[in-house]
Amino acid sequence: MKRTTYAGLVDEKYLGKEVVLKGWVQKRRDLGNLIFVDLRDREGIVQLVFSQEFSEEALKTAENIRSEYVLEVEGKVVERANANPNMKTGKIEVEVSKVTVLNEAKTTPFDISDNINASDDLRLQYRYLDLRRPEMLKALKIRNRITQAVHRYLDENNFLDIETPYLTRSTPEGARDYLVPSRVYPGHFYALPQSPQLFKQLLMGAGVDRYYQIARCFRDEDLRGDRQPEFTQIDMEMSFMTAEEIQTMTEGLLKEVMKDTLGIELKTPIPRITWDEAMNRFGSDKPDMRFGMELKDMAQAVSGAGFKVFDSTLENGGQVKAITVPGGADKYSRKHIDEKQEYIKRFGAKGLAWLKVTDEGLTGPIAKFFKENEEQILAAAEAKPGDLILFVADNKKVVADALGYLRVAIAKEMDLIDQDKFEFVWVVDWPLFEYSEEFERYIAAHHPFTMPNEEDLDLLATDPHKCHAQSYDIVLNGYELGGGSIRIHQRRVQEAMFKALGFTKESAQAQFGWFMDALDFGFPPHGGLALGLDRFAMLLAKKDNIREVIAFPKNSKASEPLTHAPSPVAPKQLDELYLKTEAPEDKD
Amino acid sequence: MKRTTYAGLVDEKYLGKEVVLKGWVQKRRDLGNLIFVDLRDREGIVQLVFSQEFSEEALKTAENIRSEYVLEVEGKVVERANANPNMKTGKIEVEVSKVTVLNEAKTTPFDISDNINASDDLRLQYRYLDLRRPEMLKALKIRNRITQAVHRYLDENNFLDIETPYLTRSTPEGARDYLVPSRVYPGHFYALPQSPQLFKQLLMGAGVDRYYQIARCFRDEDLRGDRQPEFTQIDMEMSFMTAEEIQTMTEGLLKEVMKDTLGIELKTPIPRITWDEAMNRFGSDKPDMRFGMELKDMAQAVSGAGFKVFDSTLENGGQVKAITVPGGADKYSRKHIDEKQEYIKRFGAKGLAWLKVTDEGLTGPIAKFFKENEEQILAAAEAKPGDLILFVADNKKVVADALGYLRVAIAKEMDLIDQDKFEFVWVVDWPLFEYSEEFERYIAAHHPFTMPNEEDLDLLATDPHKCHAQSYDIVLNGYELGGGSIRIHQRRVQEAMFKALGFTKESAQAQFGWFMDALDFGFPPHGGLALGLDRFAMLLAKKDNIREVIAFPKNSKASEPLTHAPSPVAPKQLDELYLKTEAPEDKD
Repeated sequence: MKRTTYAGLVDEKYLGKEVVLKGWVQKRRDLGNLIFVDLRDREGIVQLVFSQEFSEEALKTAENIRSEYVLEVEGKVVERANANPNMKTGKIEVEVSKVTVLNEAKTTPFDISDNINASDDLRLQYRYLDLRRPEMLKALKIRNRITQAVHRYLDENNFLDIETPYLTRSTPEGARDYLVPSRVYPGHFYALPQSPQLFKQLLMGAGVDRYYQIARCFRDEDLRGDRQPEFTQIDMEMSFMTAEEIQTMTEGLLKEVMKDTLGIELKTPIPRITWDEAMNRFGSDKPDMRFGMELKDMAQAVSGAGFKVFDSTLENGGQVKAITVPGGADKYSRKHIDEKQEYIKRFGAKGLAWLKVTDEGLTGPIAKFFKENEEQILAAAEAKPGDLILFVADNKKVVADALGYLRVAIAKEMDLIDQDKFEFVWVVDWPLFEYSEEFERYIAAHHPFTMPNEEDLDLLATDPHKCHAQSYDIVLNGYELGGGSIRIHQRRVQEAMFKALGFTKESAQAQFGWFMDALDFGFPPHGGLALGLDRFAMLLAKKDNIREVIAFPKNSKASEPLTHAPSPVAPKQLDELYLKTEAPEDKD
Repeated sequence: MKRTTYAGLVDEKYLGKEVVLKGWVQKRRDLGNLIFVDLRDREGIVQLVFSQEFSEEALKTAENIRSEYVLEVEGKVVERANANPNMKTGKIEVEVSKVTVLNEAKTTPFDISDNINASDDLRLQYRYLDLRRPEMLKALKIRNRITQAVHRYLDENNFLDIETPYLTRSTPEGARDYLVPSRVYPGHFYALPQSPQLFKQLLMGAGVDRYYQIARCFRDEDLRGDRQPEFTQIDMEMSFMTAEEIQTMTEGLLKEVMKDTLGIELKTPIPRITWDEAMNRFGSDKPDMRFGMELKDMAQAVSGAGFKVFDSTLENGGQVKAITVPGGADKYSRKHIDEKQEYIKRFGAKGLAWLKVTDEGLTGPIAKFFKENEEQILAAAEAKPGDLILFVADNKKVVADALGYLRVAIAKEMDLIDQDKFEFVWVVDWPLFEYSEEFERYIAAHHPFTMPNEEDLDLLATDPHKCHAQSYDIVLNGYELGGGSIRIHQRRVQEAMFKALGFTKESAQAQFGWFMDALDFGFPPHGGLALGLDRFAMLLAKKDNIREVIAFPKNSKASEPLTHAPSPVAPKQLDELYLKTEAPEDKD
């Protein structure tokens, strides 16, 4: 029998009609001569009624069915006596004239319902049950709508969907590669791509003009909250376009996605701020724009008042900045503020000074220093009675980090963030390089193929760390949703870039010679960007971990409790690859 | 300056207008005071004219440009004096008022034009140049149109695009896995998936109902003509549908693809023939339906005529079958037929008997045996004067293989195949198992998750090799385009299947226990199929190797001459993975 529609879609327009439905038993209530069954499928739940009146045989079958049995039912849609306004299908029910049990089910290890209380690993071990839960299916649907919108919009805009290799060459620059041993070339390895970066640039060299791909990327990194060994990127590259034109194209894409997934009309153009402005105003290169509480420069207002910490910081070229917590004076006790002080120490801050604003003026341990400056302080901090002003005095980076993170933490505590808002912002004009404490040298802030600003090209040879880049990040609700840049398309600039990164001519040639050779043959000016699909889906589904929007993710230890991957393999498999493992000891 | 349109799209409607174009120099003709340049981009070529009359500066620049330089030009579209009817843009030309050289280019190692004479490895080494050639860009565009049609059609039909893992568990059953060593679990390995088979079945268990994915698959096999280490599958799975319903859904998809890529109206339903019929009529499970020349059973017509080879074959339960080559009597000399006899020996055939049909009757070395049977033979073979009848007498399999391949080889030689035709056919009702000479046991003809026909379920325990399966292949022009089946959704059937395949209870549990456990929890009836995207694109682009429709393929030795993958890696990378290579000797 062919299904009439999804169980979750049976509504008043089917009244009086015969329908065939297929789905799972959500729950069963047995009233003896009357049995009610909630039948669930991908689209929702409908109430079935079994009674001698409709079919004795069906009633008999219904006596033995249990949760998660798979049923095919035939019946008539009728009005429900006690309508349930909380259900999409709450006004109707189906009087079952025929039922077939298509499959039976054991008792599931957790409920098939939202907000369950099961461990992450149990959920992953039974992922096929976890995904039956409506909130999980909804997340998968949102992710699907994003990809559909991407394909549609980019196709309409002349982009070609082109696949690049997953078995490719290892490039030790960057994150750690996953390796794939070759059986044909002993001692040789493919690497899984960290991104299709160079291949998409080669496609621009090939004249493809507009490329995109929804591409899997792989990084063998230590795992944190929202990292996965494999993740997915909406990857785009365009020839002959400026950074602004690429941003405009991307905005069209975001508009389409927001509309298709959530029915939201995204206003464009999306605001653009420079990296400097983002750091100054929000203490972050991925500012959450859903609320204010911006960082205020307090130097002028506090200097010379005799508070030594501030004065000496300013004398040594440092900064004194503050955020003003609206209504924070009452809400934050001294103990509470001490906790915040602890919190910001991880960013290198030595202390957190504070003032409360009362109707009688400023209070707090350092208030006595600022009797004369009250007006300037209130003006600079944009504070009013009832507010709390939190100060950090240190070098530029520490001030930004400490107040930037504090701003977000307090906004969450104070419930200042409208969870229904989606605030995008472009952060542009990044530094080309950043200093890496780990490598003790400058590294590429984006990647080594990013084009410096035209006016900074000469600096590349002399003062590389002063260069700014033609790069841009798109930020959503405080998350880096994606980023991109105009790329280098000429060999001499690429060579200068590698030199600035500390490569010798020989080491650059050995590692990237094949790519620089390509630049000899007429590459067009080009640029692009990549959006993190997992993160995008996570934000639109209002989840707090990308695992919730990936069908079969790895757990926090990069393993997969369902299939038990990774696993030991047969000795023959290793022999064929000319490999020997020398594990210190089996951990699993 | 923003590009007005693609160079290849400038036509009469731009006459008299100023345009900005960006592209590559295809060729330059210098007539002194007049320089013509063919400017090429993704969409084609347009003729530029440089002259003192339009711009002295532009003319000067044009004197120094060479092939494959990248130009931005501004100019006026005018009618061309000598229209070129072979060019889309042949009626117009652009009088250049301004030109900027965006990049220079060295001389390319081969021409940027169709039908070049360069080795495969040279083309792959300079793939970014190879892809500039119009026929290659066209192939990429056809592939893109296929994927766009797939996304659109399946989205319209309620399928969800869901990604499954690329880092997963090794399953030694099937082809050889590519392995990925784990850094977190020494001695443990992920495997790259040979297909998303079990994950898509799990998604049906999760209630996704309709799944699809354009999925990369990996097989570390010895390479043949059109095999690649990684290839792409249009992968689909549906719940609660019959094999016929799945086929109908697929036909809708094929219709959409044929229309979107080539503008062809595919007639549906696509013919369905059983596997038995395909083997009997065409000697192949992937029959090329673009021409006739079917295999004819000659047993009745030839038996008892005294030709020993035929008689003894038939007495021993073998077959005598023939194909009739229309007009082959004159075209095929004895020497030529001897070559064909050599050819079919690889399929186990011991000989090739033949008769030519003349106006005077049958001729040839064995004609003397069949003086009495001429009429029956002509009727059975559907032969007429001028035809050649080719006989093979052997067991069923050898007859099918030998005549099946011979049929195709001769059709190609005789030019009987209409290269503009696209003939699809479903081959259904396959045997569930096939005997593997390699493993000396029965193996799954499709895979171990294929559902036997309902009426054969009991045979699974008693005579498994007699079972037929609810499986189906879709064949296009003699190529297996894809295949699928209804899957097993109940644990007891899956257990019986593994048993029939020679698994013990323990070995089945060890390897597939995690999957069989899932079947305990109410899996719906489901099935699906997968189409080979590379092969589909190859056929629609009329290429003879899938390398021609893959942007960056591996060569025939599974290596990639552009980036030199696979490559040796740093010792540190192996140490981190607790691996040692014990290569007998470096091959590269």
